[in-house]
Parts: sequence; C-alpha cells; structure tokens
Amino acid sequence: MHNSYNKLISAIKSKKSMLCVGLDSDISKIPAESFSKNINGLFEFNKTIIAQTADICAAYKINFAFYEQYGSDGVDLLKQTLQIIPQDIFTIADAKRGDIGNTSTAYSKSVFQYFMADSITVNPYMGIDSIVPFLEDTDKFIFLLALTSNKGSYDFQRLECDGKPLYLHIIEKSAKEFEVENLGFVIGATHPTELGDIRKLIPNNAVLIPGVGAQGGDVSAVMAANGGGPALINVSRAVIYPDIIDNDFGASVRRAALKYNRLINLTTSTFLKEWG
Amino acid sequence: MHNSYNKLISAIKSKKSMLCVGLDSDISKIPAESFSKNINGLFEFNKTIIAQTADICAAYKINFAFYEQYGSDGVDLLKQTLQIIPQDIFTIADAKRGDIGNTSTAYSKSVFQYFMADSITVNPYMGIDSIVPFLEDTDKFIFLLALTSNKGSYDFQRLECDGKPLYLHIIEKSAKEFEVENLGFVIGATHPTELGDIRKLIPNNAVLIPGVGAQGGDVSAVMAANGGGPALINVSRAVIYPDIIDNDFGASVRRAALKYNRLINLTTSTFLKEWG
Repeated sequence: MHNSYNKLISAIKSKKSMLCVGLDSDISKIPAESFSKNINGLFEFNKTIIAQTADICAAYKINFAFYEQYGSDGVDLLKQTLQIIPQDIFTIADAKRGDIGNTSTAYSKSVFQYFMADSITVNPYMGIDSIVPFLEDTDKFIFLLALTSNKGSYDFQRLECDGKPLYLHIIEKSAKEFEVENLGFVIGATHPTELGDIRKLIPNNAVLIPGVGAQGGDVSAVMAANGGGPALINVSRAVIYPDIIDNDFGASVRRAALKYNRLINLTTSTFLKEWG
Repeated sequence: MHNSYNKLISAIKSKKSMLCVGLDSDISKIPAESFSKNINGLFEFNKTIIAQTADICAAYKINFAFYEQYGSDGVDLLKQTLQIIPQDIFTIADAKRGDIGNTSTAYSKSVFQYFMADSITVNPYMGIDSIVPFLEDTDKFIFLLALTSNKGSYDFQRLECDGKPLYLHIIEKSAKEFEVENLGFVIGATHPTELGDIRKLIPNNAVLIPGVGAQGGDVSAVMAANGGGPALINVSRAVIYPDIIDNDFGASVRRAALKYNRLINLTTSTFLKEWG
C-alpha cells in the first residue's frame, strides 16, 4: 500500500535530496556539440542527464508537452526515458490532466499502466469526481495544482471566494477527500509567503515546488517557508540547459544539480531530522 | 485569418447541423460482432462512424485520453483518424491542456502542427498567460472550460468570488483578452439556466455543449437557453455506442446521430435564421 508515497519518502531520505530534475527536453535547445538534433539525440540527452544526476536527486519530472510535440515518436521516447530511470527514484508525469470520470480513468491508464509513472500532476478545476479516477489504484500519488508559479496564478487562483482564496478551497476540500499518502500539491516557488500559510494547514502532504531557476523563485525563502514537510524542489531549465564549462555537458549538468541540491540542503535540516 | 472559426460557422450552415460527434473510442466498448478488439478494429470503428455521420454533423471531438491510453499506437490512431475526417468538418482536440508559457507552446505544437486539429479545449486554471500560447497562430480556435457537465462542477467552478461565480470570472476575463473568432467556452448541458445567463454576456462566442445523451442533459432546454449564438452540441456515447438495430452497426450510428440532429434543429431556427 502507498508504494509511490513510500518511494518518494525513501528517495528523499536515501539521497539526502529534495531536488527534482525536470526533463523539459526539447530538440531545439539541446547542445548541438554533444547531441544530434533529433529524437535519438534527445534520448542521449536524457540518458546523460539521468546518469549525471541519479545519485543526487529524489525525483524526475517528465513534462509531457515536450514529448507530445513530436507525436508518437515523442511518446516512445517518453516511455523509454521512464524505463531508464533507476527504480529507486520517484517519477512525476507532469501532464496536468483532469476530465470527467471515464476520461480521467483513460488518462490514468495512460500514465500509470502504459508509462508506469509513480505520480501525476492533476488540474482540479473540474472538481473532486474528476480527480478520483487517478487514485483508483491507491498505490499511486497525485500532485494537485493549487498555486502555480506563473504570473497567471494571479488571474483566478487567488480570487477571494467566500472569504478565502480559491487555491485554499481546492487544498482544503481535496485534503478532506484523499489521504496524505496519495495527495500532494503544486505550489510555485514564486509564492513563499503563501507556501508558509499553506503549510500550517497541510503540514504533512508532499508539495512539488516548481519555479526555481529560470522562473526566478528563491530557494532559501522557499525552504524556510516549507518548514519540515516533505517537498520536491523542481529545477528544469537551469539544470538541463546549464552554462557549459570546459566543453563538458555532462559535468556541467552535474555541477548545476549539485549547486541546487546544496542550496536546498542549507535549509532542510528540520526535514532531514524529522524524516531522515 | 480566423480560418478555424470560419470553418466552424461554414460547417454548421452547410450541414444545417450543430451536432458534434465525440469519438471517445475504446477497445473494450466497440462491438465485437463488427470490429476486431484491437487498434486496427478501433480505426475501422472510427472510419465507420465518420462515414455514417459526416454529412449530418458539423464537428468531431476527439477525446485524447481514449487514444493516449494505448501509448504511441493510440497516438498514431488519433492522427490517422484526424486525417480521414473530411476537410469541411471542424475538428476539436479535446485534450483539456493548459500550463506555463513554454509548456503550453509545446502542447500547441502537438495539437495544431502534429495533429493539425482546428481547435483545442483548454483548462483555464493557470490563468491568461497559460492560454495565450494556444492562440499564437491566430487562425486557431480554443474552447475554455467554464462550467463543465459533471457533478464536480459544483465543487469549485460555482464558488462565489467577489460577488459572482468563478466560471463568470473566467468567461469575462478571457472574453476581454481574446477575440470572438478565437474563443469559445465549454458549458455543460446539465446547466441550462446558467447557459442562458452566460449567453447574455457572450452572445456571439461559440459554445461547446457536452453532457447530452449518456450524461443526461436535455437538448430542448439547452437549445432554448442557447438562443441564437453559434453552438456545438456534443454527443459521444449515445451516438458511437448506440442500441444496435437489425445487427447493423453503421445504420444504428446514423440513426442515433440523425435523432440528435433532429432534436437540436427543432429549436435552432433562430440560429439558422441569423447565421444560415
């Protein structure tokens, strides 16, 4: 039971890392000096990143959009990439799905049975019955979008509804419906104050925190706000497209990942004491 | 300019139909008497439905989840299905995507450049900047989720925020940002009263109305509430999995589609007068 959640916690403890590397892999952005600019090159790119970071990150987040843009070849690449991720590392299908019941069931089959990911990001707009099918297999884990890292998070997510912002309604209602061992939330690194407030309500649910690196979120502010709960700090572009030093792509990726892991761990002593 | 929108309006006029057939095609549900229970059988199933309904529907809605559950084979099937839809019929990628800017751009490439659909359903939760990339090509069209047909639509979409329900904030803000010729809304058939109120605010935007048929929405109530604006009434299960009469799957599909088209047209005289 709760295999995905247990894997997440074990990965954080054993790696002493809350770093999640986001594989937003894009043919137009991979360095031509090191990789051919095609699907095969993209697989070699992913392989290199995984080889260089598997011992220092707890999770990989696969951004489905970047693979879907290449059609069925991209889907094959996505599956192959998930297959080469070491079994002890937690995987997140960053697909932001969510639909009426029988459709969410089909998305769940895609992500959990075909791709065999440990978890998925889910968009809550369509309500609780659109979320339930993703947890029919109680071994799995979801991250519900709550307060995202982009500027657009100010458009609807923060609207005051019956005395509190929309994202709090989503967090409170879903926390009542689903167990801590199945339910996490996406909270952008660009909202550290709100993260602190949210943590008072849901101290034990895992949170996935994107928005560090290219999007400008501050790691130390985020870690201080997170306090002692389980968290994954996602870094995509700043790790997989690093400044390349000494013409060595692999070493440059590792250097970037180590830098972020060190930054995260400067302020995670509470977490490691309580959980580690 | 606005090719997709023009195609939508032309299809409705020339077919004298606001029927949209939803291709929620599933191996486990296709009739074994007529089709082999595999991906090839699913393609024959889609071919039969398109052949039987192309002259009496304005649009096909392809539910991406049902194809994605079969991995890259399903993605190939999805593309092949879009290729056999006659050019004069409007196509909807029912994918409910939406993410930060560079990710929405990749989803947009998938749907518009790889699959070459005319339009996509978009989840607005992440805000305006998550929607913009889908309309970088101003020829394309989006349907934003506003008030969906499922029970879960009561969980968050109807929350009162600063004096009006969340779905109205989404409709009003997006209607300010995007042109009528690019922007439609998804309004479930299970909310006819709200549809009538929404139509007073946005009389000219196209609406996609799911929830008729298996989900129980009433066609005549919906058409009366819609008034004279451009609309697509989606029917999926009740058309593609009909009661089979005389052992003839194709004729049974056609009979079901004709029944819904007739029901819709009983109350669309206003629309056809104004637009037709």
